[in-house]
Order: sequence, then C-alpha cells, then structure tokens
Amino acid sequence: MSDKVFEKVAANGLISRRHLLGLGVSGTGLALSGAALGADSGINFQIPSWSRQPGPGASAYGARSSYAENLERLSGAPNPTYPGGGASRSPLQHLQGTITPNSLHFERHHAGIPNIDPSQHNLVINGLVRQPLVFRYEDLLKYQMVSHIHFLECSGNSGALMRGEVGGSAQSLHGLVSCAEWTGIPLSTLLDEAGVLPEAKWVAAVGADAASMGRSVPISKALDDVMVALYQNGEAVRPEQGYPMRLFCPGWEGNISVKWLTQLKLTAEPTQFRDETSKYTDTMPDRSSYQFTFPMGTKSLITSPSGEMTLNQRGIYQVTGIAWSGGGSIRRVEVSADGGQTWAEAAIQGHQLDRALTRFTIPWEWNGGRAILQSRATDSQGNVQPTREALIAQKGTLSFYHTPCIQSWGVNTQGEVTNVYV
Amino acid sequence: MSDKVFEKVAANGLISRRHLLGLGVSGTGLALSGAALGADSGINFQIPSWSRQPGPGASAYGARSSYAENLERLSGAPNPTYPGGGASRSPLQHLQGTITPNSLHFERHHAGIPNIDPSQHNLVINGLVRQPLVFRYEDLLKYQMVSHIHFLECSGNSGALMRGEVGGSAQSLHGLVSCAEWTGIPLSTLLDEAGVLPEAKWVAAVGADAASMGRSVPISKALDDVMVALYQNGEAVRPEQGYPMRLFCPGWEGNISVKWLTQLKLTAEPTQFRDETSKYTDTMPDRSSYQFTFPMGTKSLITSPSGEMTLNQRGIYQVTGIAWSGGGSIRRVEVSADGGQTWAEAAIQGHQLDRALTRFTIPWEWNGGRAILQSRATDSQGNVQPTREALIAQKGTLSFYHTPCIQSWGVNTQGEVTNVYV
Repeated sequence: MSDKVFEKVAANGLISRRHLLGLGVSGTGLALSGAALGADSGINFQIPSWSRQPGPGASAYGARSSYAENLERLSGAPNPTYPGGGASRSPLQHLQGTITPNSLHFERHHAGIPNIDPSQHNLVINGLVRQPLVFRYEDLLKYQMVSHIHFLECSGNSGALMRGEVGGSAQSLHGLVSCAEWTGIPLSTLLDEAGVLPEAKWVAAVGADAASMGRSVPISKALDDVMVALYQNGEAVRPEQGYPMRLFCPGWEGNISVKWLTQLKLTAEPTQFRDETSKYTDTMPDRSSYQFTFPMGTKSLITSPSGEMTLNQRGIYQVTGIAWSGGGSIRRVEVSADGGQTWAEAAIQGHQLDRALTRFTIPWEWNGGRAILQSRATDSQGNVQPTREALIAQKGTLSFYHTPCIQSWGVNTQGEVTNVYV
Repeated sequence: MSDKVFEKVAANGLISRRHLLGLGVSGTGLALSGAALGADSGINFQIPSWSRQPGPGASAYGARSSYAENLERLSGAPNPTYPGGGASRSPLQHLQGTITPNSLHFERHHAGIPNIDPSQHNLVINGLVRQPLVFRYEDLLKYQMVSHIHFLECSGNSGALMRGEVGGSAQSLHGLVSCAEWTGIPLSTLLDEAGVLPEAKWVAAVGADAASMGRSVPISKALDDVMVALYQNGEAVRPEQGYPMRLFCPGWEGNISVKWLTQLKLTAEPTQFRDETSKYTDTMPDRSSYQFTFPMGTKSLITSPSGEMTLNQRGIYQVTGIAWSGGGSIRRVEVSADGGQTWAEAAIQGHQLDRALTRFTIPWEWNGGRAILQSRATDSQGNVQPTREALIAQKGTLSFYHTPCIQSWGVNTQGEVTNVYV
C-alpha cells in the first residue's frame, strides 16, 4: 500500500473524489530492479516477436484485436415461435468512456434485420398534411443535418430486477442501453415541407421490417427534437440500427425510435400499434395500464465492480459506471458502499451532455469484508434515481418496463460480486 | 424551387444560416399523387422483399451495410523499400457529424501493425525518476481514467497542397485527421508514482512496433493533459491505433501520440529520435529547420461539395465540413463562395468541444456558374486559419508538414469540383 493518506468520505471505504487525479492503484507498478524482476514477477523483458519484424500495413476498414474479443454483445437463443425477435446487450462491464462503438450498440428486433437497398427505399409523409410527399434516400442526404450525442435505452432494460432473485452481469441485466453521436435531419424540417394540418396531433412512424414495427409520436415531440437519423458515430446507420434511416427521439424509450423508417403518417389520434398496446405499456398493481410512458428515467449503474466479477485482493479499486436521464443532463452521481446508508459524490470522468451517457468514478478501498455498492444519479431537473423498494411501492412488479431503480452489487468476503436487493 | 425567400449573406449564393432549421432542399420531396408517381418518377411502391420475411437476428459484433461499403479508408500501394510504412486516410466526404468510427480512423504506420498480446506487454517508466516502475496491462486497467473527445491529425496532412497543382478528394488530400473519444490514465498519475526528478525536462516515449517509433515530449505537456489511452470510442484501442495502449497528446501532431507504448524515459534533453530529426521537422526557405512544431494549427475543410464530386443540377446545396484547432475549441467558421472575397458565418451543427472536430454547415444556391468554395476557422484563442498564399509566404514549400491553410474547391460550369489555388 502507498503511504498516502486518503480522505474517507463515506462508510465502508469510499475515498474522496478529490484524490482522483493523484491517486494510483498503489503498488501495481512494480519497482524496476533486479529483485523485483525475478522469474516470479511475471514480467517478461525478452524482445517480443512483434517488435522484431514489420507487421501488416494499413487497411480499408479496421478490426479490433483478437485479444479484445471479450467485447461482444450478448443475445439469447433464437425463439422458433418468434422468428427474428430478440435482442443483444452491450458489454457494459468491458466498455469505458461514454460512446458505444457501433458494432457493440445494443439491438432489439421484432422481425430480424432487413437488408435494405437504399436505392429502393422510400420515406413517405402522408395523412393530415397539406401535401403528401415521398423522399428517396439520396434526396434526404442533401438536407441540412444536426448532430447530437444521445443515449438510447430499451424500456425493458433492467426489467429482470422486477422478477425476483436473479443473478447476472451489468451486461445481462442492464445492457439494453448504449450511446452514440446521431446525425440526421430534424423531423420538423420534413414535416414543414409537407405542411402539418392543425388537426394532426400524432405522427405514426412505421418501419420497413417484416414486423412493420410502428409507434405513435406526439406532434409536440415530433416538432421539437426528433430527427430522421442517417448517421451513427460518423458512418451510415448500421443495418441493425435501421439502415438506411431511423427515427430518433432523444431521451425516450428506444422502441419509439422506429428503425428502417419508411412512413410517417400524421393522425388525430394514436394509431394503436401492437407495440403501444400489447407491449411497452406499464400495468399497475390494480391491473390498469399506463399506455404511454415516453421519457426514460434518471438512472445510473456501477459497471465495475459489477455482477459476475471477483475482487482478487483487498485494496483500492476504482468504482466506475454510467449515468443518464431522459430528463436532461446528469448533475450528480453519488456512490454508497454500505447499501445506501452513507453516500459520497463521485467524480464525472468526461463530458456531461444532454441525454447522453455520463461516466462517473470514485476510489474505494475494499477491506475484505462485505459491502453493497450502489450509485444514485440526479439529473439537471433535480430528478433523483429511486430505490428498487420505492419503485416497486409505486408501480408494483407486473410490468417490467421503465425500471430505473438503484442497482445494488453485493460483495461477499470472497470478493464475489452479485446482484442483491436491500 | 420553393417559393421561400432566402436571405443572401455573401456573394455567389450563400444563404443565411438562420434559415437552417426551416430550409429543406426544395423540391426533393416528390408530391405523392398519381401524376407524380408514374413509372418515370423512379419511386418503387412494391412491397420490397425485406418487408416480406424476417431477417437475421442479433449478433455478437455488428457490421455495416453492404450498401455502405464506399465508406473505406484509402491507402497507397505498399513500398517494398519501406516494409510496413504507409498510411490510410479517413473518407471525410462520406462521414457526417464529428466522431470517426474506429474502423475508419486514419492510420500511419512506420513498421506495420504489431499484433501485441497484452499479457506479454509492459510499460516501463525509467530514466530521471526516483523509482523506475514497470506496469502490466492488467495493472493499468485498474487505474482512475479520464475521457475526452479529441481530434488526431498527422502533421503531414494536407501537405500535398505545398507540392504544386494536384487533384484529389477531401479524403486523399486531407484524410489524415479523425476524431474519437479517448479514455485512459492521466500520464501525470503514472509519473507521480515514479517520482519525476527536478532535472527531468523531457519524456522519451517509445513504441513496441518494429520501428521502435519514438518521440520526445516536453515535461510540461506530459504533466498537463497527456494520457496513456486504453480505450477509443468505448472499446479497447484498436491494433492499428496502438493496442493495447498508446500515448495521447491532445491537440499535438499525431506522430507524438506514440502507439504500442512500451517505455517512457525521463530525460534532461530531447532524445533526437529519427522521427524528430530526419522527419516531422519543418525546413524553411533558408534551409534552416524548426525541429519541434507540436500544436496543430487552426483549420477547417469543406467536405461536401468537395474534390471529385459533381453537382448534377442547379439549386440549393448544404455546404458542410469540419473545423478543428490544436489551440482550443472552434469559435467560428466562415464560408465563401467567391474565392474569399466575401464571407458568411456558417452554423455549428453539433458540439463545440475543446480540440475536437466541429461540424459546420451553411446553405448555398448554385446558379450554374463558376464558384470557389472556401471555409475559414477561428479558434477560441482568436487564431484565424491562413490562406495558402500567406502560409507559403511564411514557411515556403520545402516542408509539407503543418499546412493548415484554407482549402479552395473550384466548381466549374459543368458542376465538377476540384482542388484549385487562388
């Protein structure tokens, strides 16, 4: 251990975030001397093979290291009664920063991934408009665009926490959230060209997949910050994210950001699509349902240490995780190591952007005893992430949609980390 | 054409950026009626094959659409006398927003790409320190990290403009710049553990590639904002970007952000590596040389319309491009359509982050005549991008490094866009 004096700021080992920039994981850098570098140090000072001869040159399209293949999405087995239905989850415990690389962005499909030829794909705007219009892909590329870094989260994310005792990892429990820079055309621009009639109160958005996935978007949102997204982290939107175009509704449940977008129909009432009636509705304990719960909650999650990890030795760990809110930017994240009895404020590691993943971190000294690690986000509107107990008291457990509650990771005396409820 | 009245703000067709959110590319949305949708409309309203049956399901690691394969890096032919030497350039004219996807980030290699096993890779800190240290990759993963979105640019980028009349595209002339979210350990943290001695004024950074690429970093920069980067846009740094770790020196010429980092040696003087003596130095007209020119200049570039494109019809185009500066954030980008005689301020499309690519855009009406499109960036320090003429007057044309001058794209009466000098 270092001889530094660390200021403890909450019970069970949390250390002031003010130490952040000066605090290493004391003792991990091995002293470089003969004694330290014996055969048992694990350090190899032979000139490695890759330093002896030139490697392959530049390429047209790069790939990750074969040593980094633990960075994979996780999907369940295909369901033969639901062809093309399913999801894959981002490996949150292996990611860092806030941007999700396109190849690791979570997926949710209702009829698999259509392989769309953009030259044969159209976007129709019709219904309650002065002039119905049809746009070809190449037309849309000529439009003025906007770019924003935003999270996208499936409203079913973390729903397993409503289903009783479950194990799992950050990925398997919470991996239906990702973050990217989305670039596209403000929907208001296209609607303005078609001319929205006064009686139009909703926009029915429909995808070109075999499920004809559809959702109704209130006109106020459609004219506010919704975009027809054509690019994701700089390149064309990926097929699994809606190539050649998708709707993107910042801060709202992922399902309403309709992929493979092919129609926008202006209507006076919601269209009552399958995915806003039989699914994506929140049933309360009295069996009544909230049909539309659009904005995602104020939420955070410790990604390391997290479920299915093991702490191998006592000492200082960097607790890190992500926070986000459909209501704005993240103002503050607090961390507890004693199951929510005492809290300390974490440091924000990078940018704090509107409705984007925000990375937090705080040092923590594990003394070898039991601990329960939690994080609690507060957004720019003052919304505070609720406990699981409070969320269940409010909405029961019949619905597993919209569950932004605090995640508790239990650490036992063997250092094993698991999902626990407190 | 639309019947909208557009406010002209500079000569030869530039339209006020205040029209941005309300301005479409007038006339591209085809009226949806029987007459407009005849066989000659090019619109296909048959139900496409991809809407008729479920597509493939979720995957572990995603890929782009086969229809988006024009998004490729461009590299020259291998040089048999320089094995592993070379570069590849980002397809700037096909990208949008500001983040470069990892697979399309530019490359520059001096001995190809080593395939490093991280369990056999070490980072040594030695030289003028109280305690030399050696870190294993797994040690470094435990450290406190920081995340920043920053551009990276090769100092040789755009150097072709110093070599007389050349054709080319935004990619071939300027594609050695990209932008990513980099996450890593502040170098100051690691140096603090080793204990920098007062006489240490430079840090010699050496890579594990077969070229042993090395550069000397002034201690003031090393202790300021340099990081040992382990993640790029959320996932492990790619092999072609230095897996498992690289130095990252924000705002400085790319070569000093040493990839495959394996040694940091504290020294009293620069080490005089090959890449800071025979290369990456700026020779002036009198044959004297500036050895160290670290920060990249204040620069911008119109990516569309750009070289090798053709405007197929008169009308309104969205001029868009990227701006960046090693001196801070971008304060303003101006655009000219008449070769720099009159200027109009462009809109900033997304975020304006410190030393990051910033996207600008402004509408422009091409009347079918000749035009010369230029952009001119001003950064947060008030630095203004110079003309090519002014840059040559200052530094001559013997050196092709550090050439942040204004790019002029000429448009002829056939709509063909080419690199021109004015």
